[in-house]
Amino acid sequence: MSRIAYVDGRYVAHRHASVHPEDRGYQFADGVYEVVAVLGDHLIDEEQHLDRLQRSLSELRIRWPMSRAALRLVMREMIRRNRIRGQGALYLQITRGVAPRNHAFPAEAKPVMVMTARSLPPFDFEAARRGVKVISLPDERWRRPDIKSVSLLPNVLAKQRAFECGAFEAWLLDDSGMVTEGTASNAWIVNDAGDLVTHAADRSILAGITRAAAFRLAAEHGVRPVERPFSLDEAKRAREAFLTSTTSWVKAVVSIDDTPIGAGTAGPLTTLLLDWYGAYVAAIKEGAPNG
Amino acid sequence: MSRIAYVDGRYVAHRHASVHPEDRGYQFADGVYEVVAVLGDHLIDEEQHLDRLQRSLSELRIRWPMSRAALRLVMREMIRRNRIRGQGALYLQITRGVAPRNHAFPAEAKPVMVMTARSLPPFDFEAARRGVKVISLPDERWRRPDIKSVSLLPNVLAKQRAFECGAFEAWLLDDSGMVTEGTASNAWIVNDAGDLVTHAADRSILAGITRAAAFRLAAEHGVRPVERPFSLDEAKRAREAFLTSTTSWVKAVVSIDDTPIGAGTAGPLTTLLLDWYGAYVAAIKEGAPNG
Repeated sequence: MSRIAYVDGRYVAHRHASVHPEDRGYQFADGVYEVVAVLGDHLIDEEQHLDRLQRSLSELRIRWPMSRAALRLVMREMIRRNRIRGQGALYLQITRGVAPRNHAFPAEAKPVMVMTARSLPPFDFEAARRGVKVISLPDERWRRPDIKSVSLLPNVLAKQRAFECGAFEAWLLDDSGMVTEGTASNAWIVNDAGDLVTHAADRSILAGITRAAAFRLAAEHGVRPVERPFSLDEAKRAREAFLTSTTSWVKAVVSIDDTPIGAGTAGPLTTLLLDWYGAYVAAIKEGAPNG
Repeated sequence: MSRIAYVDGRYVAHRHASVHPEDRGYQFADGVYEVVAVLGDHLIDEEQHLDRLQRSLSELRIRWPMSRAALRLVMREMIRRNRIRGQGALYLQITRGVAPRNHAFPAEAKPVMVMTARSLPPFDFEAARRGVKVISLPDERWRRPDIKSVSLLPNVLAKQRAFECGAFEAWLLDDSGMVTEGTASNAWIVNDAGDLVTHAADRSILAGITRAAAFRLAAEHGVRPVERPFSLDEAKRAREAFLTSTTSWVKAVVSIDDTPIGAGTAGPLTTLLLDWYGAYVAAIKEGAPNG
């Protein structure tokens, strides 16, 4: 079955989808995006993703290409047309539009929205518990990673470096040696005093939707996360470490720069958080189709 | 007459040109570019632009989409097909190619090259001498602006801010309050001691081709530029200030954050440099068609 993409008002065959090379997303990284997890006809944390999208657009002063209600309909239509039955993901990108190349905002440009969809294998809990390696690298991104823009070249280079080191992710270090986040995930530790610690959602990280869910779930179960920077050294001495993202959910980190963390597999709190998150997603799936 | 674009091996009508939304340039800013000034059938500093392109590609490990000789032919064909007779500009972008979205480099992706061309009005020497205003803003770019990538969102935002302040350009300040460069041009001053100063072409600025030409021309005329950072304060006390870029050539800066510089018009060394650069370009135009 062929995949369908949504591009600027039309549903088209994915392989024939096209945007103009003078789309400002292509020439200037002048656009924002979201990735939303899909479970059957359910969208996980849809409103939170749309709220964040609203914030990204607002920070860059890009107009919504359509109403939020219409966007919700397009998302559902994409799930339907792409026949996503189990797990999947929607990718949604909005740019400032097409205009003759010039850095400043064009006087008249219509935002361009592109959406793609794909089916994914069922979430692999065992792999998430088995965990992954991470490496540390300097955070070379621009100063506003809190805006979910497509200005992702430093993330690409860091992720590639991790991949070449046999790691799954790179944790990025600010000038003080503090871990900000991963290239495509948020970073967490359970430090040697037993505190659950993650960087505050300030301007130096992207406020992950799964991060927020994990935060909420932990608090509901009586574990209050501490929002503060933690150093690479503190991370390497941690009892547990893990990362969160829309597609990774809660994934154990078993080594940082080849320093083993904990017992070399998911620690007790990481395991609990993954279970809680899995139950949270399952409950969404069991609920009425949202929207 | 309709404009022609070159996209991934084909000459197409500019308005129908298209790239795939999963081109990594669109989703990750994973690409590089050059803008080359055209005068009739001459390309200004073509080899220097291609050398810099080579460096950008090499830093990102993107392959050339074709041989350098073939690229030179495409550039000439674009000038011909777009009937550029006087002044013009070629825009050339190379991305890592199209692949299912994933941060790390795709195992197999063919680089995509896009080229557009436009005619421009003749260079306005009088406007360049009349000068422009600049404002100062924090340099919020990623750590590798020396790579000419399309990761330009911070440049866009700063240029837009300048525009809204009635200025032509924003000069960007590093954490020590030193001017790195503009959003799309290099920054120069003649300080109160009479030294011609510009930031060294290290990792914190893009090594401008017009910057290098101005450097060379100054030295040929017995003025040795000093390559070092200069502070915003030093710039505001300067006798002269100017900027250089492929399309701006040498343009006087007459105020910085509303502090007037010099006599409110191009200073003597700025005027000389503009004349020398104009003569340099005119000599290229009078020469045999290059290539």
